[in-house]
Amino acid sequence: MAEALIECVPNFSEGRDPAKVQAIVDAIASTPDVHLLAQESDADHNRSVVTFVGPPSAAVEGAFRGVAKAVELIDLTQQSGEHPRIGAADVVPLVPLSGITLAECAALAQQLGERIWNNLRVPVYFYEAAARREDRRRLENIRKGQFEGLREEVRSNLDRRPDLGGPALHPTAGATVVGARKILIAYNINLHTPDVDVARTIARRIRQSSGGMPHVKAVGLLLASRNQAQVSMNLTDYEQTPVHAVYEAVCREAAALGVEVAGSEIIGLWPRAVFEAAAAHFLKMENYRAGGLLEDRLPPRQL
Amino acid sequence: MAEALIECVPNFSEGRDPAKVQAIVDAIASTPDVHLLAQESDADHNRSVVTFVGPPSAAVEGAFRGVAKAVELIDLTQQSGEHPRIGAADVVPLVPLSGITLAECAALAQQLGERIWNNLRVPVYFYEAAARREDRRRLENIRKGQFEGLREEVRSNLDRRPDLGGPALHPTAGATVVGARKILIAYNINLHTPDVDVARTIARRIRQSSGGMPHVKAVGLLLASRNQAQVSMNLTDYEQTPVHAVYEAVCREAAALGVEVAGSEIIGLWPRAVFEAAAAHFLKMENYRAGGLLEDRLPPRQL
Repeated sequence: MAEALIECVPNFSEGRDPAKVQAIVDAIASTPDVHLLAQESDADHNRSVVTFVGPPSAAVEGAFRGVAKAVELIDLTQQSGEHPRIGAADVVPLVPLSGITLAECAALAQQLGERIWNNLRVPVYFYEAAARREDRRRLENIRKGQFEGLREEVRSNLDRRPDLGGPALHPTAGATVVGARKILIAYNINLHTPDVDVARTIARRIRQSSGGMPHVKAVGLLLASRNQAQVSMNLTDYEQTPVHAVYEAVCREAAALGVEVAGSEIIGLWPRAVFEAAAAHFLKMENYRAGGLLEDRLPPRQL
Repeated sequence: MAEALIECVPNFSEGRDPAKVQAIVDAIASTPDVHLLAQESDADHNRSVVTFVGPPSAAVEGAFRGVAKAVELIDLTQQSGEHPRIGAADVVPLVPLSGITLAECAALAQQLGERIWNNLRVPVYFYEAAARREDRRRLENIRKGQFEGLREEVRSNLDRRPDLGGPALHPTAGATVVGARKILIAYNINLHTPDVDVARTIARRIRQSSGGMPHVKAVGLLLASRNQAQVSMNLTDYEQTPVHAVYEAVCREAAALGVEVAGSEIIGLWPRAVFEAAAAHFLKMENYRAGGLLEDRLPPRQL
C-alpha cells in the first residue's frame, strides 16, 4: 500500500519582508520528513504561500511550526495588502494526495487546531471539509470583515466567534483558519487595464456565488506595482471546471468590456492533468487521453 | 549512471487488417526486455505505427523481429493507402531517450540494416543521423516515387540505388529505411473541408522545404473515411518549433482560405513538455517554468 501523503499549503500574511518569510519557511522545513515543494510571495497581496508535503504526522507538525513562527513575526496591526486576511497564519489547508482520505485530513485539521489554540493562544476557525458549522465551509464567510472588522465583531456577535478559543482574537496574530480540502488551483488573470472595476465586474460574472461557473471563486484586485487590474481566483474542483474553461470565460467577459487579457499566473503547484487538459483543449485534440504521454509509458527505471 | 534506453518507432504499411498488425506487434513484443508503449493504425493511411523502448541490443532485436514479420505478411503489390511508402516495413527510426547518444543510435542503425539485408534480402536505405549520403538525410528524398516508382528507377538510375543490398527492391516488401533521429512529433490537423487542395496549399505554406517554419514537414491528404482534408505533419525539433506554434500557423492559413480547423491528433506518444509548453502558451502564463508541476516535486515514493 502507498504511504499516506498530505500536501499542506499555508498562507501567511507577509509578502514583502524576505527575511520573515524565510524564517517561516525554515521553521516548516526543520520538521523531519517534511518535503518543501514551493514558496511564493506577492508584494501587492502582502502574502506568501508555502507548499509542502509529508506523511500525516509530519505534515501536521510542519504546519504547526510554520504557524508558530508566523504568530511570532507578523503583526497584523502593522500589516496591509490587497489580499483579505484575518490571521498572521491566515489559512492552513490539509490536502489528501495519496493513501489518505479527505475525512482523515479533516480529523487531522482538528488536532492541528487544538495545538494552535492550546499552545499559541490563537483562536481557530475550521473550514471546508473540517468545518464544524455548515456556514463555515466557505472561507469567505469566515474572513468577512477581515482582521480589523472581525476583531470588533467577535465582542458582540456570538455568531462570528471562533470554533476554538477566543472569543477575542489574538491581538497581533488574529485567528487562523484550519481545514481540509481537495487540491485547489489558485489562478490569477491580469488585465490590460488599471481599472479595478473591470476586474470586479468580471469576477462577479464568473464566480459561482453570483451565478457564474461552479467551483469558481473570484475577486477583482488592483496590482499597484504593475498598474494592472487582476481577476484573482480559486478553482476548487479543476476536474469539474477546468482552468482552460475559466481562462476562456474571463477572456470573453473582458472582451465584452473592451479589455484584453495580459497574462495569467499560477500560484502554488499545479497537477500535471491541468496542463494536459488545457493543451488538449486548445489544440482541439481528437484523440487525447490522460496518461498517454511518453513518460507515462516508460518502464520503471533501474537505479 | 542511467541505463541506456532507446525508443524505436517502426512504421508498417498495413493499417486495415488487425490480425496482420497484431502479428507484427506480437513479434516485437516477444523480444526480452522490450517494452511496448503504443500502437496506432490508420485505415486511410493504411499504415501502423508501433512505439517501443528497450536497452540498445533489445531495441535492435525487437525492430528486426517486427521487420521480419512485416516482410512475411505485407505484399506492397496488393497494398495502397494515402500515406507514401516504399517498404512493407517502411521506416525504422532509433531514438535516443537516455544514457545514449544520437551517434550511438546511428551506429546501431547500421547493424540493424545489415541484419535486414543479410537475413531478409530486403535492401536498406539509411536516413537522418544514420544517412551514408547527405542527400539521404531527408526521408522524402529516399521515398520519392514510392514503391511503384522506385522499383522501376533503381534498374537504371544508380543514384537511387539502396545503401545496402539490391539493387532490385524486394518483390513484395520493397525496401526499408533505417535511421536514427531525435524525438519526432507526428501531428495531423483535420480541416472542415473535403477539398484536399486546401490542405496541400496550407502544407506548402508552413513546411520548411518551401520556405515555411523550420523543422516542419507537411503534406496535404484526404481522409476518405471522414471526407476531411488533413495537413499531416512531422515536427523534427519540437523544442525549436513547438506544436502550438504549428497549430496556430495552420489555423491562420486555413482562415485565410476560408476554412476552419476541425481538430488535431497525435500519432505515437508525446513528451510531456509538449503539453506543458502548449498550455502555458495558450493560457498566456507569465510564470510558467518546466518542471514546475506538483508531480515533479514529490519526494521519491517508498514502495
